[in-house]
Amino acid sequence: MNFASDTASPCHPKVLEHVAAANAGPAPSYGGDRWTAQAEADLSEMFETPLRASFVSSGTASNALALALLCPPTGGIVCHAAAHINCDERGAVEFFTHGAKLHPLDGAHGQISVPILQAYLQSVDESFVHAIPPKALSISNLSEAGTHYSPKQIATLSTLAKEFGLGVHMDGARLANALAFSKTRPADISWASGVDILSFGFGKTGAMAAETVLLFGDKMDLLPQLEARRKRAGHMLPKQRFVAAQIIAMLENQLWLETATHANDMAATLAEGLQNSGIAILHPVEGNEVFSALSPEQISKFRGGGATFYAWPDGSARFVTSWNTTKAEIDAVLALL
Amino acid sequence: MNFASDTASPCHPKVLEHVAAANAGPAPSYGGDRWTAQAEADLSEMFETPLRASFVSSGTASNALALALLCPPTGGIVCHAAAHINCDERGAVEFFTHGAKLHPLDGAHGQISVPILQAYLQSVDESFVHAIPPKALSISNLSEAGTHYSPKQIATLSTLAKEFGLGVHMDGARLANALAFSKTRPADISWASGVDILSFGFGKTGAMAAETVLLFGDKMDLLPQLEARRKRAGHMLPKQRFVAAQIIAMLENQLWLETATHANDMAATLAEGLQNSGIAILHPVEGNEVFSALSPEQISKFRGGGATFYAWPDGSARFVTSWNTTKAEIDAVLALL
Amino acid sequence: MNFASDTASPCHPKVLEHVAAANAGPAPSYGGDRWTAQAEADLSEMFETPLRASFVSSGTASNALALALLCPPTGGIVCHAAAHINCDERGAVEFFTHGAKLHPLDGAHGQISVPILQAYLQSVDESFVHAIPPKALSISNLSEAGTHYSPKQIATLSTLAKEFGLGVHMDGARLANALAFSKTRPADISWASGVDILSFGFGKTGAMAAETVLLFGDKMDLLPQLEARRKRAGHMLPKQRFVAAQIIAMLENQLWLETATHANDMAATLAEGLQNSGIAILHPVEGNEVFSALSPEQISKFRGGGATFYAWPDGSARFVTSWNTTKAEIDAVLALL
Amino acid sequence: MNFASDTASPCHPKVLEHVAAANAGPAPSYGGDRWTAQAEADLSEMFETPLRASFVSSGTASNALALALLCPPTGGIVCHAAAHINCDERGAVEFFTHGAKLHPLDGAHGQISVPILQAYLQSVDESFVHAIPPKALSISNLSEAGTHYSPKQIATLSTLAKEFGLGVHMDGARLANALAFSKTRPADISWASGVDILSFGFGKTGAMAAETVLLFGDKMDLLPQLEARRKRAGHMLPKQRFVAAQIIAMLENQLWLETATHANDMAATLAEGLQNSGIAILHPVEGNEVFSALSPEQISKFRGGGATFYAWPDGSARFVTSWNTTKAEIDAVLALL
Repeated sequence: MNFASDTASPCHPKVLEHVAAANAGPAPSYGGDRWTAQAEADLSEMFETPLRASFVSSGTASNALALALLCPPTGGIVCHAAAHINCDERGAVEFFTHGAKLHPLDGAHGQISVPILQAYLQSVDESFVHAIPPKALSISNLSEAGTHYSPKQIATLSTLAKEFGLGVHMDGARLANALAFSKTRPADISWASGVDILSFGFGKTGAMAAETVLLFGDKMDLLPQLEARRKRAGHMLPKQRFVAAQIIAMLENQLWLETATHANDMAATLAEGLQNSGIAILHPVEGNEVFSALSPEQISKFRGGGATFYAWPDGSARFVTSWNTTKAEIDAVLALL
Repeated sequence: MNFASDTASPCHPKVLEHVAAANAGPAPSYGGDRWTAQAEADLSEMFETPLRASFVSSGTASNALALALLCPPTGGIVCHAAAHINCDERGAVEFFTHGAKLHPLDGAHGQISVPILQAYLQSVDESFVHAIPPKALSISNLSEAGTHYSPKQIATLSTLAKEFGLGVHMDGARLANALAFSKTRPADISWASGVDILSFGFGKTGAMAAETVLLFGDKMDLLPQLEARRKRAGHMLPKQRFVAAQIIAMLENQLWLETATHANDMAATLAEGLQNSGIAILHPVEGNEVFSALSPEQISKFRGGGATFYAWPDGSARFVTSWNTTKAEIDAVLALL
Repeated sequence: MNFASDTASPCHPKVLEHVAAANAGPAPSYGGDRWTAQAEADLSEMFETPLRASFVSSGTASNALALALLCPPTGGIVCHAAAHINCDERGAVEFFTHGAKLHPLDGAHGQISVPILQAYLQSVDESFVHAIPPKALSISNLSEAGTHYSPKQIATLSTLAKEFGLGVHMDGARLANALAFSKTRPADISWASGVDILSFGFGKTGAMAAETVLLFGDKMDLLPQLEARRKRAGHMLPKQRFVAAQIIAMLENQLWLETATHANDMAATLAEGLQNSGIAILHPVEGNEVFSALSPEQISKFRGGGATFYAWPDGSARFVTSWNTTKAEIDAVLALL
Repeated sequence: MNFASDTASPCHPKVLEHVAAANAGPAPSYGGDRWTAQAEADLSEMFETPLRASFVSSGTASNALALALLCPPTGGIVCHAAAHINCDERGAVEFFTHGAKLHPLDGAHGQISVPILQAYLQSVDESFVHAIPPKALSISNLSEAGTHYSPKQIATLSTLAKEFGLGVHMDGARLANALAFSKTRPADISWASGVDILSFGFGKTGAMAAETVLLFGDKMDLLPQLEARRKRAGHMLPKQRFVAAQIIAMLENQLWLETATHANDMAATLAEGLQNSGIAILHPVEGNEVFSALSPEQISKFRGGGATFYAWPDGSARFVTSWNTTKAEIDAVLALL
């Protein structure tokens, strides 16, 4: 009964199948292979727009590379205070940007508050050389509280950001779950709502290690700089075909949507069960995460029964469901109460 | 007929088998899994010493992380002028060390000349704050010219380096080939000869993406710093079991030695064939690389016949053999002449 | 009627006298001169302890160099949210530390709250590699709200910090004012209360450009690293004698204390006058800064009358007095009401 | 008898006079003062072109800031192997650029060889992401061998550099000496010959601590970035008027030219005297430096007689003359032979 993390799950069998299929004959190193080209084409089709894609093996790398393209060392990056880039990546953004400063903002349920963002941006005096001006906005979708941003929310945030000259990044480590929940087209939740660079991950929905940096619109021109930084960071893998093959697998017949939908369903089922047992759910369940208010006794019961999950910094117990979570597991964990 | 690079080869079937075997049930993320523990134990057994191992997905990352542990931003790193870290990693070492300076030295056949190293180290005045003092020596084994360093050579270099207070790093992207050629024990070519930190790679001998940073002796104490830097660089993979499984596969029954020996044999066969055709071999063939002096006509013949290989900066044509190079391929390429 | 900043004041005539006196004959470059040696000796005498001193020409450089010695790129630095290093140095600390992260804490009147610091430090899990562990505490004395820390307060903060393994830095850009107010010995407010590295500035009390980094106790061993970083940052001046001469001037007969005491007296007089006019003073006046609650009309009157001062981020109007502020200026500004 | 360095000399009395004159009344901090504006205007007049000027207190800072504007972290900087930025600034360029790589080239008498530069630039394959492409050329004038580049030489180098997309920087720590020797107009040796950013120093010709970064042509647009980086590096001095006043002093009635001409004359006289004594001069004396081939006995005689000078890395004894070197000193040192 793993509810600790979706990354504690194995990878989807189809991912391994595609990896095995790519394991035939020689192929050019460092992304010159045909799988890489296909994966980029598939992503372009998924997002219904031309794009440039780079592949890395962790979400941390994807976020940090993307933000290094949008923010100079002397600038700042606005994000939610609980954002993964702010709390859980050991300063990767500071490393890749050479010391840009994160400017964390508050907001309910892990989402950046529009009035707070607006007030902050209006308070900035770009001509005051002593302070750090914001140059990028990073939106996590799903947020760290498991909530999703709608296209309209994203458009509001990105319009505001761009009014003040900021580039817009999305941390889409769980974007598949957000898309599955909101039933929106990938285009609408990304470039069509003002996202310039998207860190779109497959590790949490079924891949072994396959994350992407996607450049949209005029940001496609940044590809050479991205490639230089990716190489320099050791994220340009010699045998890149095996990363590309995972992406191809996840995109084929929308496997990402199938696995994310299943994980979301399991989370909804779990949340319903917990609520039926009188347990409060602290954030709207809009993806594959359930943040619940458990008593110490309840925590003991769950853990004693073999369920793994994390105590979260906001005081809740976080349960994460995955592509391979079963209804039986949900029943079993609820039966522990 | 791929002689472009060993990384253009597929991965060994046993690697995929182990990856597939690891793809069962949940496992703790970020290296808390049992495969990671086993891979470290297997490496310790291979090197006949306690060690600390971190896993990354590229040799560039492994080299840069290792050197960041040995050299502060204000220090220098001595290496051969042709070293991969100096020529082919887009400044990764400069990035991870925050601006340390490579100090390239010459030497025949890709190997650092002992007298040149000695003269350089003796010329350094540590008290002269304006110049950059060397703090680490990086030895590539195999070298960029395909030659191997013997344990005695390594001991000579590392003794000299340590006399002047430098830490010793080995770039072992092709260490398996060096070991296969010299028939030495891994211990003798590494820590027992003074190597402090080893970047030992499996990508060129059969893995998909599995490279290691190995800390020996008192450098084991640097593990927390290594882990912090690895996380911060985006090289701590959530589903690390799949990297560990590759390493386990490569160590099981010394698969690395089997694949490296085969590649070396193929290189020797190719070199012999080329020489028999009157083609000069420019560096001793001590691993899986053959650097040959081809005429434009010969290059055309080879390429026209479907052989891939690189024109090397030293003016030669570099042929790299791999674990899956066949005798038939060697015959076929030689038949093109 | 300059109340904008103490750095808008000229330098003290005795500073120029010493500079002119040092302008005779050749002297070794880069700090090998006798003025540098004397300035370090004078500082040692002032602080009644052995110390190592490095000289730079801005407080920003002094703070950033000091913190780079205490905190690695992967660590964090705890400071007050309003600290100069957090708000007014354009990310200098992030630059010099290569991306360490400031962790701002709240507290009344610009001072770090002990319970908040304690709660934060207790919440840190050093073994959680994903988050940034704090490695240094930076205390501003005077604080950004013009308040001073007593030796007891500093000892409480630094004892707590050291319990958790943090080094302790003090930003003493206005330390002279704090010393003048509290009538404490320099030793008691620095190393004897647990400060490891002190950024002690003379620019605000009468120098042209003379700031110091002072290493106490076992931190004296960090001098070579400090010098390397200082050189690398372009802060090791060729003709350093002219910086040293300013420091000698400021220490001779405790000129720093005389100028700081005068500035403090002027601030107290101004605060009293403002209060007598019914204007609220928002922070205790414990140095040379007065933070007042002015109405728009009062602001207009002051500015219209030729007084310069800053609207401060906390909503107040900040008046800074200086070594050359006169009682007549205070009377004149008060007469504007 | 100081021939160790021109920075071992005192500053010119007129510099102190201007500093003292600027020490009256309040003035806006951080460059908002009238002296700063005047110094920039005077520099613009000197170079007969619009320009943007930033002031710092060391040549190291000036060079490193300038190059950080021209070269990204992933790029390279071409310079002479003996360049100050390569050998004597403790990696300042690497620090300020966040790890760009210096690419040192050879050439006689400290000057970059045009054929060597051309061959190198032609060998670069910008599409090869693994290697570092050059993005800036840095020319030292005077060179480290004391030789000057003529406008024609500079134009040849910069035209070549620009053909390959490189920006052009000049390290003009001793530009005054070069101008005095060549009797060229400042414009002709800088922007009119293709220099984009000039590090023009006054410390070696008479100032206390006053160096500039001058942006020409379209590089003027980089001022905001320069100011942000300057602040972040701690090089934006609060009381900047005192730096500006030094520059005003040095420009008034071309004091820089008077002092440089005198220093050059003394060097020529010294060189002539040495040659008359049968001592070989190793590089053309085109400024205020004389590189001579001394025997151990001659070195002993000089040093025993009280002359200070440095043994230079090229094996020579370097004598540097200064604005305050006297003919009597030259006679005295020659008399020691």
